[in-house]
Amino acid sequence: MPIANFLLALIAIFVAAKLFGELAERIGQPAVLGELIGGLVVGVSGLKLVDPSNDTIHLLAQLGIVLLLFLIGLQTDLAQLMRVGASAVVVAVAGVAMTFAGGYALGMLLGFPTMVSLFLGASLTATSVGITARVLSDLGHLRDREAQVILGAAVVDDILGVTLLTLMGSGGGLATIARTTAIAFGFVILAIVLGSILAPVLIRAIERIQLARGIYFVSLVFALTLAYLAQRAGTAIIIGSFAAGLVLARTEKGKEIERQVHDIVHFFVPIFFVAVGAAIDIRAVSLPFFAIGFALALVAVGGKIGAGWLAPGRGLRRGVIGVGMIPRGEVSLIFAQIGLASGLLSQGLFTAITVMVIVTAFLTPLLLRRMLQQSTPEESLVACDVVMEPPMEDEGGATAAARESYGTPARP
Amino acid sequence: MPIANFLLALIAIFVAAKLFGELAERIGQPAVLGELIGGLVVGVSGLKLVDPSNDTIHLLAQLGIVLLLFLIGLQTDLAQLMRVGASAVVVAVAGVAMTFAGGYALGMLLGFPTMVSLFLGASLTATSVGITARVLSDLGHLRDREAQVILGAAVVDDILGVTLLTLMGSGGGLATIARTTAIAFGFVILAIVLGSILAPVLIRAIERIQLARGIYFVSLVFALTLAYLAQRAGTAIIIGSFAAGLVLARTEKGKEIERQVHDIVHFFVPIFFVAVGAAIDIRAVSLPFFAIGFALALVAVGGKIGAGWLAPGRGLRRGVIGVGMIPRGEVSLIFAQIGLASGLLSQGLFTAITVMVIVTAFLTPLLLRRMLQQSTPEESLVACDVVMEPPMEDEGGATAAARESYGTPARP
Repeated sequence: MPIANFLLALIAIFVAAKLFGELAERIGQPAVLGELIGGLVVGVSGLKLVDPSNDTIHLLAQLGIVLLLFLIGLQTDLAQLMRVGASAVVVAVAGVAMTFAGGYALGMLLGFPTMVSLFLGASLTATSVGITARVLSDLGHLRDREAQVILGAAVVDDILGVTLLTLMGSGGGLATIARTTAIAFGFVILAIVLGSILAPVLIRAIERIQLARGIYFVSLVFALTLAYLAQRAGTAIIIGSFAAGLVLARTEKGKEIERQVHDIVHFFVPIFFVAVGAAIDIRAVSLPFFAIGFALALVAVGGKIGAGWLAPGRGLRRGVIGVGMIPRGEVSLIFAQIGLASGLLSQGLFTAITVMVIVTAFLTPLLLRRMLQQSTPEESLVACDVVMEPPMEDEGGATAAARESYGTPARP
Repeated sequence: MPIANFLLALIAIFVAAKLFGELAERIGQPAVLGELIGGLVVGVSGLKLVDPSNDTIHLLAQLGIVLLLFLIGLQTDLAQLMRVGASAVVVAVAGVAMTFAGGYALGMLLGFPTMVSLFLGASLTATSVGITARVLSDLGHLRDREAQVILGAAVVDDILGVTLLTLMGSGGGLATIARTTAIAFGFVILAIVLGSILAPVLIRAIERIQLARGIYFVSLVFALTLAYLAQRAGTAIIIGSFAAGLVLARTEKGKEIERQVHDIVHFFVPIFFVAVGAAIDIRAVSLPFFAIGFALALVAVGGKIGAGWLAPGRGLRRGVIGVGMIPRGEVSLIFAQIGLASGLLSQGLFTAITVMVIVTAFLTPLLLRRMLQQSTPEESLVACDVVMEPPMEDEGGATAAARESYGTPARP
């Protein structure tokens, strides 16, 4: 890609993200919804200024989601996350099982072969936590107990999704299932245990040698390294950076790290969400496959909402959990691409999966905002107090700074 | 590039930049020297973790230099720059003329054909301002009058370099020279005049609509847009972002913009300097072409030091100006690549030009630091007062923050 095109793509991404993000907030919607729509406008369906299939744009978008989960991890209390661990596992396992079975049944019902139906089922399983996490923080509910269940379940989901991917790829039996799952869970546990020991040592070392911008660079390198190791261990990269955030949040410099990496995270995050919108080709969808996509979306939504209702735990807003698990993203599209490449899925079914992803991605912000406004428990108010420190006090208006600080209500 | 390799490259870049940058400062050298050496270690000559020929790494490095020049522009006083305008033009024109003639003469002396000799001459002409700007700010001398002359001359240099490139490419006559030069100078003047009118309007508009992180994103988009327009107008991208910085520095939000973009600039800048070091293949240099490269470097250094001595203006440290103009970079390598691709330059001469670039890049920080320590006029003390605001007061040690704030002495 020539440098001029790259600059133009970046300009288009930032202008689209800020313009439509701001418009979304003006009409009371989360900014991320605007960024997705902004992506539609500048992407393959619109002005074609941003090509998300380009290697550089794709990598920067990936970096955006890695850094977003790092920031979310920094804002998450590991102890609280563990307390809702059981609920998270139940929601994840039930959600994966129900959507997999539902997607498979839908495929068989529509007369597709068994392997095709299995692929359709698999493509519905894994929640893409990025959109939910953004909505929750756009609206200032990231520290609600329900948010913890969603985050925990999404991590388990990603692990199950990666296991399924390995299975569909290798067609392996029980041994493969056991090994892949063990590696994934093992990585998370090891990352948190070793990370919790290593991080304070690292931070004290930086303090002592007085490295210029040490905290900033060392915490970024820490997040990138855990993301890299997660990928190498055969699990999802965002699990690595999320674990890095969890671990660093518990050190004495947790709050400071959050403040320092805030700006860089905000640079890359819009690239991810605009790229998601930009990848959508609305003109490629024909009516029958649009209908199949919609049916898939219904199963995808129903399965996760059902799983949300199964969450054990007193006083949980189970509807919020179910809706929070709705968005599908990268993992679904990876299944679709593998299916397309292997010849199992037709171009039409590939598009149908894309439609399902779009519907879930746009539905979640709309539903979640409505549900969170109806029921506001005390926890969310406490959460606001914790996160409300604006990272830059000297910005134009304090409102503007606070509004963007991920974890503060948009327009109270 | 798979995401794992990308993450690994980023990790290698930041670790190398910080580790060797810190080591360089420990032995009293500018951090940028360490970053170049760090690039040698992780690049094609060493661990091969960073491949600067990769499209994504190359684009991010370019973005790094674009943003660095934006920050330098933000820290530059346009009025002061104009006051030394005459000196800058003299230094630039004399430097280009002398190195071009010197390189051509050296080529003819060594028995190369006329066109080859012309190419060798052209490859010596354009100063790569990035390294000098970094050294000057690492050492806190960015607001010295000599620094202004160097910056101004480097802009003129880039314009002349682009003109030469167009000429060597098209082989055009006087009309082409006139048109290319007019476009380049016209762009700078237009960008500054129109920008000066537009920027305050833009900033007042952001204030009024209270856009979240408005100042941060709008100033970045402004810089990227001017860089893009510069490229489109047929001149160097860094001239565009430098002009954007100059213009925004004069608005009432100048200082705040500088503070807000500081972190993001520091993320991308090391990518550029590590990539420069990473591109160097020290094993590819055979002895005779090493000798030619060294001879070219002598001409390159001599021509610019000579040009520095011609600078009009009372009380100027002319030696500092000449040494500041020494570094060669992208433009030289572009000439080398065009020459290689067109078959005019052999692989050996291509390497010789690379040797010249390496020698000048490493020589400048060493010489400049020595010269600036010997002579410290009052201006530089005043300058320190202006730039000394550390962008993040809450970082570990105030020293660490101040040290990295580009414009403060490394170890006073």
